[in-house]
Amino acid sequence: MELAKRLEKVASMVDGYLFARVKGAPEQLYDASLHLIRAGGKRLRPFVVVTVAEMLGEPPEKALPFAASVELVHNFTLIHDDIIDRDELRRGVPTVHKLWGEAMAITAGDLLFAKAFEVLTDAVDMGVPADRVVRAVNVLARATSVVAEGQALDTLFQDRDDVSMDEYIEMVYKKTGALFEASAVLGGLVATDDDSVLSRLAEYGRNLGIAFQVRDDILGLVGDEKVLGKPVYSDLREGKKTILVIYALERLGDEEKEQLLSILGRRDAARSELERAAELIKSTGAVEFAERVARDYAERARRALESMPDNDARRALLELLDFVVERQR
Amino acid sequence: MELAKRLEKVASMVDGYLFARVKGAPEQLYDASLHLIRAGGKRLRPFVVVTVAEMLGEPPEKALPFAASVELVHNFTLIHDDIIDRDELRRGVPTVHKLWGEAMAITAGDLLFAKAFEVLTDAVDMGVPADRVVRAVNVLARATSVVAEGQALDTLFQDRDDVSMDEYIEMVYKKTGALFEASAVLGGLVATDDDSVLSRLAEYGRNLGIAFQVRDDILGLVGDEKVLGKPVYSDLREGKKTILVIYALERLGDEEKEQLLSILGRRDAARSELERAAELIKSTGAVEFAERVARDYAERARRALESMPDNDARRALLELLDFVVERQR
Repeated sequence: MELAKRLEKVASMVDGYLFARVKGAPEQLYDASLHLIRAGGKRLRPFVVVTVAEMLGEPPEKALPFAASVELVHNFTLIHDDIIDRDELRRGVPTVHKLWGEAMAITAGDLLFAKAFEVLTDAVDMGVPADRVVRAVNVLARATSVVAEGQALDTLFQDRDDVSMDEYIEMVYKKTGALFEASAVLGGLVATDDDSVLSRLAEYGRNLGIAFQVRDDILGLVGDEKVLGKPVYSDLREGKKTILVIYALERLGDEEKEQLLSILGRRDAARSELERAAELIKSTGAVEFAERVARDYAERARRALESMPDNDARRALLELLDFVVERQR
Repeated sequence: MELAKRLEKVASMVDGYLFARVKGAPEQLYDASLHLIRAGGKRLRPFVVVTVAEMLGEPPEKALPFAASVELVHNFTLIHDDIIDRDELRRGVPTVHKLWGEAMAITAGDLLFAKAFEVLTDAVDMGVPADRVVRAVNVLARATSVVAEGQALDTLFQDRDDVSMDEYIEMVYKKTGALFEASAVLGGLVATDDDSVLSRLAEYGRNLGIAFQVRDDILGLVGDEKVLGKPVYSDLREGKKTILVIYALERLGDEEKEQLLSILGRRDAARSELERAAELIKSTGAVEFAERVARDYAERARRALESMPDNDARRALLELLDFVVERQR
């Protein structure tokens, strides 16, 4: 089966499961919570859970509780991040706090977070042994702690002009890599508690996640707004220390560096200024550099799967790496 | 051992455990997360966990992971609630968003939430069987979903003048009762998976929690600010539909009702106006009514423990009921 079809199949199974499990009152709260999930999304993290489980010989159904739980955690972080970043558009629709206000949006995120752990424990009913489910809870909870640390670093970096490439990679691992890592490990825990298998899966997920975020940074500068469903340049407006910005700041001459810094983080910057900032960044070769970095992490992820069973599911996980570094949205 | 001593002993055990388990970087994030926990608090929920486990014959140490997890969930909700309610003072110190800003406060709450589930899984290492730990995860996650529903109702009720007493009790059960209920059940799960025992414990916790919140409403109107560590009348300013407000709105004549409604929910209301509102409410006998309601729920909680082992721990859980309905802070 080609990757696009597999993605679609998993997305539809996960959505079916998730919408059946996440409902209740008051209506406004549940509508706010499910708003972004209903608006779309690629369901890449649940795809990793389900496909890793399949690679190890388990039926996709057995992986659904874990798969739904990582998607719920992901969407909870999106709702809160949008409040923090004051973003107004995502997946082509207004963000949750724009539609329901900040109070309801904070609570809507909290609800999804709670539902993630509620749904996760369904795995026992699907035949996953209790000790592995406890381990899955620990893996997902730890990953979510790490995501919070990454979110805090992202916020703190906005006030600094000297963020190093190592600090960037740490932040991106925490903010994005950790949840992909947990997704791969959760997929593994559907089938096994063999630590050597789980640690290779962790490596796959972690590197996939970093590659994904680097590509996200690239699309935030050179992507097509209509395809993305959110505005480009908002990273610049928010003063985000993306891989492109860090690379450019390290290489621009004093005058151009000052010019770039004078635009970064200014929420009222004019479109023409943002375009000038983008040009300055591109002139350093930052985009090509970031593309190389993304491919490098994808390659590490590929190697982590080398000793895994050679089957369709494994091939899909490898294809996913190409998709992630080449995607346009 | 008298109740005050027992409370102190459990608080010190839980704090030791919790501070050892919740640390990391960036420092700002962890400081923000632990700020309210460091500022004080009675640790009533962990007390319920530990004391229920003791009543059923288990050592307090074995209950610490569950005990710490409910305190972490409680404090996560406090951080987010203070943002939502725009409260500036709690436990005698400025709230988290006042000191670290809203972005960091949202993330700090999320971190505590994640840590709650991380810490909970330690119970396996303390000898609680994995299937009971999975059940505990489910109980705590469901309770946290219910707390989010209660928080949403609380927000929605602020725009309504016709909230009924039944709706109030539902909201208060969700916002406060559910986590006390989960605390009692988690204490039970340290020792047993006997459903009849767990359901009586749930009843104890649920009714204790409702009594606690009704008393909280009373203290918000007639409490001493210095003892409370937070301003009185903020419920009035925020337009909260407390049991006192609902009772008064049902009983005041048209003119006085209009007067009360014209003050409720006005954040810029003068002190003299708030005092007038408080007087109107008190004139209906609302405080005495609420005291009766609190005692009634405490009595239901008492009955739920009737068939439990008769020992010091059980006596402490019964004394806790008196403490909750008579407390001044």
